[in-house]
Amino acid sequence: MTLMQVSSYAAGTWIAPGGGARRIDSAITGQPLAEAGNDALDVQAMLAYARDIGGPALRALTFHDRARMLKALAQALSDHKQALYDLSYDTGATRKDHQFDIDGGIGTMFVFASKGRREMPDGQVYLDGEVEQLSRNGTFLGQHICTPLQGVAIHINAYNFPVWGMLEKLAPTLLAGVPAIVKPATASCYVTEQAVRIMLDTGILPDGALQLVSGGLGGMLDHLGAQDVVSFTGSATTALQLRQTPAIMRNAVRFVAEQDSLNASILAPDAVPGSPEFDLFITEAHREMTTKAGQKCTAIRRILAPEPHTRTVIEALSARLAAITIGDPRLEATDMGALISTAQKADVLAKADLIAQEADRVFGDPNGHVGAFLSPLLFHCPDPDRAGRVHDTEAFGPVSTIMGYRDLEHAVELANRGGGSLVTSLITNDPAVATHVVQGCAAWNGRIYINNRQSMQDSTGHGAPLPHMVHGGPGRAGGGEELGGVRGVKHYMQRTAIQAAPEILSAIGKTWMPGAPEVTGPAHPFTRRFDDLDIGETLHTASREVTLQDIEHFAQFTGDTFYAHMDDAAAKRNPFFPGRVAHGYLLLSFAAGLFVHPDEGPVLANTGLDSLRFMQPVSAGDSIKVRLSVKQKTRRNAEYGEVRWHVTLTNQKDETVAAYELLTMNAC
Amino acid sequence: MTLMQVSSYAAGTWIAPGGGARRIDSAITGQPLAEAGNDALDVQAMLAYARDIGGPALRALTFHDRARMLKALAQALSDHKQALYDLSYDTGATRKDHQFDIDGGIGTMFVFASKGRREMPDGQVYLDGEVEQLSRNGTFLGQHICTPLQGVAIHINAYNFPVWGMLEKLAPTLLAGVPAIVKPATASCYVTEQAVRIMLDTGILPDGALQLVSGGLGGMLDHLGAQDVVSFTGSATTALQLRQTPAIMRNAVRFVAEQDSLNASILAPDAVPGSPEFDLFITEAHREMTTKAGQKCTAIRRILAPEPHTRTVIEALSARLAAITIGDPRLEATDMGALISTAQKADVLAKADLIAQEADRVFGDPNGHVGAFLSPLLFHCPDPDRAGRVHDTEAFGPVSTIMGYRDLEHAVELANRGGGSLVTSLITNDPAVATHVVQGCAAWNGRIYINNRQSMQDSTGHGAPLPHMVHGGPGRAGGGEELGGVRGVKHYMQRTAIQAAPEILSAIGKTWMPGAPEVTGPAHPFTRRFDDLDIGETLHTASREVTLQDIEHFAQFTGDTFYAHMDDAAAKRNPFFPGRVAHGYLLLSFAAGLFVHPDEGPVLANTGLDSLRFMQPVSAGDSIKVRLSVKQKTRRNAEYGEVRWHVTLTNQKDETVAAYELLTMNAC
Repeated sequence: MTLMQVSSYAAGTWIAPGGGARRIDSAITGQPLAEAGNDALDVQAMLAYARDIGGPALRALTFHDRARMLKALAQALSDHKQALYDLSYDTGATRKDHQFDIDGGIGTMFVFASKGRREMPDGQVYLDGEVEQLSRNGTFLGQHICTPLQGVAIHINAYNFPVWGMLEKLAPTLLAGVPAIVKPATASCYVTEQAVRIMLDTGILPDGALQLVSGGLGGMLDHLGAQDVVSFTGSATTALQLRQTPAIMRNAVRFVAEQDSLNASILAPDAVPGSPEFDLFITEAHREMTTKAGQKCTAIRRILAPEPHTRTVIEALSARLAAITIGDPRLEATDMGALISTAQKADVLAKADLIAQEADRVFGDPNGHVGAFLSPLLFHCPDPDRAGRVHDTEAFGPVSTIMGYRDLEHAVELANRGGGSLVTSLITNDPAVATHVVQGCAAWNGRIYINNRQSMQDSTGHGAPLPHMVHGGPGRAGGGEELGGVRGVKHYMQRTAIQAAPEILSAIGKTWMPGAPEVTGPAHPFTRRFDDLDIGETLHTASREVTLQDIEHFAQFTGDTFYAHMDDAAAKRNPFFPGRVAHGYLLLSFAAGLFVHPDEGPVLANTGLDSLRFMQPVSAGDSIKVRLSVKQKTRRNAEYGEVRWHVTLTNQKDETVAAYELLTMNAC
Repeated sequence: MTLMQVSSYAAGTWIAPGGGARRIDSAITGQPLAEAGNDALDVQAMLAYARDIGGPALRALTFHDRARMLKALAQALSDHKQALYDLSYDTGATRKDHQFDIDGGIGTMFVFASKGRREMPDGQVYLDGEVEQLSRNGTFLGQHICTPLQGVAIHINAYNFPVWGMLEKLAPTLLAGVPAIVKPATASCYVTEQAVRIMLDTGILPDGALQLVSGGLGGMLDHLGAQDVVSFTGSATTALQLRQTPAIMRNAVRFVAEQDSLNASILAPDAVPGSPEFDLFITEAHREMTTKAGQKCTAIRRILAPEPHTRTVIEALSARLAAITIGDPRLEATDMGALISTAQKADVLAKADLIAQEADRVFGDPNGHVGAFLSPLLFHCPDPDRAGRVHDTEAFGPVSTIMGYRDLEHAVELANRGGGSLVTSLITNDPAVATHVVQGCAAWNGRIYINNRQSMQDSTGHGAPLPHMVHGGPGRAGGGEELGGVRGVKHYMQRTAIQAAPEILSAIGKTWMPGAPEVTGPAHPFTRRFDDLDIGETLHTASREVTLQDIEHFAQFTGDTFYAHMDDAAAKRNPFFPGRVAHGYLLLSFAAGLFVHPDEGPVLANTGLDSLRFMQPVSAGDSIKVRLSVKQKTRRNAEYGEVRWHVTLTNQKDETVAAYELLTMNAC
């Protein structure tokens, strides 16, 4: 039988395995399956290709361009996912496991594609937060921006998720505008290689945006600099070793680590046997022990239940575990496949032996299966306060330990003994319990997953990191953070504080701000198409007096007879008003009457309004006028784009009475 | 003469210098001035005191409580600042330098006090970003929160800013709810000790919130864990050494490093001699070379000017430098005081010798002054492309190197040769130049400072980190980030992704969200005082039909005769509307008419509105009704607080036509 030849993709060329290649065995049969690695890989050429070719090409695109690129890549992977499924069985994964890895990875890429379009600008500079007033008169302002790092991201992934593990890092990296070199764990790198081929075959990616190392990384990390990032997923031991690379330490290279951790799941006191939450707890624990044969960084390693219920939990969970079928992952009937290798199984059993020093095995036979197959092993630790191993030994397989707690405080204390986790879950229907546990545990966790009867139908599972939410955790879990929507994209960008005059800041952020020059257009801005409008294009309206009759009339018409508008004496007693004042909505309505151009034209709709603040009351006899300026433009599709207008209402003394941002959809 | 005895404050007790104490000399006279340090300091007891006593006490307070505490501390320091001035002269600093260090530090604390009240909740949980919809029907949601780390922050500060250096770290740390152990550089620790005494004497700080190590840290860093943070300011060499502490590496302890860097200032091509910008450039360069005798992490080390103007820059800057008076910092006439010590002077001169291998000295005599006094030294590097030293050797004193550039691309390239900086400045009046430089340099900088004729009166200076803006930079500058308002507070908190049902999430964040239970109050919510209103308290209004006459009338009254409201045929041609539709502001106004309670009562004013989105058009004959729910409450003072209401408008088919957040000020 010829071995699969797993290639690297380096500086634009596929490089087949060569000197120093390592053999990969099938998790199912234990037979040689593939080989990967080549000592001759030119890592410096790869870095240069990414930095000099890939980076500039990606940075020339806008966030929206890159988001569209992600969507197309995700679509291509989706179109070819059967090929990925077919390959993945040999890693020991079942059809259900593929959903987490392959479908989950593709879904993550789709979410980043969508967030990139919705939450980031169609430009090269991401504005982080609001403008800061750094001087009283507004001539010197501050704005934080994020721009892509000018180096390369090295992604070092674990064996358990050959597809998701790559895509969850690649999506934010590419969206940021940074090229990536992906180094999957060798044991399952043949699946990753196939996914890379699918993406490269689309021809969508700029040269240098994506490279692949199948096999060892060589000395690549020794050549990293200030603009590079390492994103690592794997064991604490490997992370510690890589962190110490002299070039990484010396150049303060960002090192984002996501390590397996001793995640806990807490059955709350209210979730008594017989409650929907109790059953939910057993279902979650069962799923976390068996999915991917327990080879998940987020799997539940410690099951915390109220002392009086530990026995019932053990019985219920054991019954569920006893019912599963372990075997060839290709078979429909199989619930749990194999560990990645016999070596991994040996490691898991060695760790289980350590746990057994402090806990009794209550389910499963370590020797019940051949090859890389392994029964779930459930332990019960009778004295978790004095125990140490059960809180810091991770057996990276279908292994978990049940421990009883006395009260909620004790549960929090035990959960935090993990020393920092990716996730802790809590099954409760009591908001007070949830609040208590979150306040006690949040600082030790990257994620807290709470489930109850209301959310159980739609909840995504203790162990599933979502692209919307951050993934990573403090301490034992590595101290890194991935995903979390735009938060995850920022790991591949530099945040920079920009201080400047309004005109300069407006140009840098393509966002008009007060104090920057106003552009006078050739006609009323409502008559100008999306593409023609300039940033800063401004309309000054005529002014309109607000009469007492207007206020009376508006009150009658709308039914808003709030005392501040109707009763002079009562309004005077109010700390904010000099007497009767105009309704805020009257001012907004009159403002629209002043700035709207009535004719059919490119403005299609007023879609919303943000950050309205009333700054000064308007009394009868005052008059208002409007300044309307194009603040930002965001194309939405071929037909139309969103215009964000900065609107200021001033009175006859030129005092600002209200300011807001108006959104319209405009034809292109 | 007896030496000042500089004590430590450890576990609630002042500890005088003892075994292993180090002597500190006056920068002015070189004579022994003080001694600090005690080998017997019990660092583990200090850590325990912070973690077990200080942390819980701080976490029991809300962000607003802590902000008020900061304000009181800043006020106390301000009241006693003369004592700090008096001590600070012996560090070599002038009265003007004190403004940066002492007034600047106090000002930073005031800004954090203010931002804590304005930008953070009056609670223990900070909500980071918006709710994420994790399921289609809204029963499973995501929300990121930040909660205080449960460990201790170790602040290791540089000698140059004994007050600001402490306060810029302490303010965000305490605001986050984390206790601090401050370790100032020994050379100027007597000033820091005085500031700590002033703060402790207020009696405002909870026990354990603030401790001080004067002298060496001993083995403190060996005992740090997952919930601790080290914030370091100082040299790259020391940072590298501390980073490698095994406990820090193993436990993924957050290590925020802010290192001196080779900051550049760029004179843009448009800022020709004779322009206001040219003079501004000389002024900034002169100030950065002489303030604190150039002992600033942010000082300009590399001066980049267009080739043809380098000679003019050298002449203009030399003339300014020639005019300064160097001497006793206590004297009014003195422009520049001394370096911190003769040892520091020797180090600066050794670095200057390295620079002199690649650059010609064009101003200043290294041997022109005695003791720790030193003339500014200006170099000119004729070939900055081939040079290396000038881009990576920091002489931490009044030393800077001028280099010419060919074009803007070349200027960007040279600036980035610094390998990562705290700040790069650019003096230009051309927005296109600014945009170009920012796109090229931002990824290499924590801050970019741009100045021109518009901002020059109000600009804060190239070298001044502001509490509003992030401070820190990639690579050579340490890769850390401080300040930046709430961003800086987050360095002392853990961000956690919470996934849960709406009811649970609402309780955790004290923020009602759709899907959480609605609370029915005993009366109309507008009749209830701030303190009585419950989160989630909800009013459902009657419904009101919107007639064609209403639309016509509103158009006439307000003047808003936009075609979508007036012309059925034109509206039908619009991609969003089925025909004529009601004005958005008509809907808002009618909604207010439906939910407002007219009588004089606790609602004082409608102060604003956020995140309004129109989701569905309303045609004549449709009717609308309102759901108004208390989303958040924020007390503003003893008399009133802000209520943020979640408002949803639905039509007769229960489809949401608009949603927004309304702000009112309510009496307590």
